[in-house]
Order: sequence, then structure tokens, then C-alpha cells
Amino acid sequence: MAEKSGIVFIGSKMPMDYVLAVITRLSASDAKEVILKARGQAIATAVDVAEITRRRFLKDLTASRIAIGTEEMPAREGENRTRMVSTIEITLTRK
Amino acid sequence: MAEKSGIVFIGSKMPMDYVLAVITRLSASDAKEVILKARGQAIATAVDVAEITRRRFLKDLTASRIAIGTEEMPAREGENRTRMVSTIEITLTRK
Repeated sequence: MAEKSGIVFIGSKMPMDYVLAVITRLSASDAKEVILKARGQAIATAVDVAEITRRRFLKDLTASRIAIGTEEMPAREGENRTRMVSTIEITLTRK
Repeated sequence: MAEKSGIVFIGSKMPMDYVLAVITRLSASDAKEVILKARGQAIATAVDVAEITRRRFLKDLTASRIAIGTEEMPAREGENRTRMVSTIEITLTRK
């Protein structure tokens, strides 16, 4: 659910799973910042996670930086070309 | 598909439908800017639209501002409380 320093990768679980990861991350250490990374349909979940965390739990949190991009993914089995997939990075910072 | 001045509302159609709306909007007038608005699952489509337009068609386009938020939606039939839904606004600007 949560890997590397300060990065939470958003996948296909429920938003609350990731919200807990973000809160844990920001509480356990003296980290001031967490970056949510997602691609494809999980982009909508990433925005949910940022909004739920900020509105319900850590009111001093802001989305200090939001970046979108595109990644090339290897072809799936039975396909013969790579796919382009959209990505988002949301940096959440404590005031 | 496209309403009001410079705003394109992203719904459940294919990304290319909205890409065309953005290109039309930016070509027909001397508009330098289009704002994509989406909520819920359509947030992922909005990011696709921004990325496809920028990478394939209008290379001088940048996502100059990205804002996320939450909107309260009226309760659906059979439900008795309002729902919170995440939103995104992506401002695309020509250089």
C-alpha cells in the first residue's frame, strides 16, 4: 500500500485504505509531505484520497502541487503495441 | 459537450470527443485558454483529454493550473443523505 519515502501509490483498493496510509505516514515520522501517485482510472481515487484526508482528518493539509503526465506501458498479452496511460502526482503538505 | 465560455465539462463519453471540443474551442476563437471540469470517475478522463490534446495535437499547450475539490451532490433516489464527490479543474493555456 505504501512504499518508498513519502510516496503512496494509489491502486484499485478503496480510498480509505490509502487515506489511512497517508495519515500513518504523516503521523509516524516528522514528515511534512506525502506524494500520491496514480495512473489510469486510479487517478480519480487519488483525488478522492487527497480530498478525504484533507477534509475529514488533517485539516492543515494542502495539495501544494498537482502534476499530470503520460507514461508508456508495455503491451498487454495479445496486443502488439505499447499503451499510453495518464498519470497524476499530488503532493500533500502539512502547514 | 462544450458549454459556456472556455469551459468544457467532461462526462462519460470517449476522451476524443472532448479533445475535439477543446481543439475547436481554441481554434475557432482567439481564446488562449480552456478549462476542463470533471467530477467522480470522469476525473481520469479529464486528465486523458488534457494529455492527448497536449501531446498529439497542440504541442504549445500547457496545464497551467490544476485544482482539486469536493462538491456536495443531492441524494440519489432511495438514499437519504447527500454524497460528496471529488472534482478537478484543469486549465489549458496556449503559450
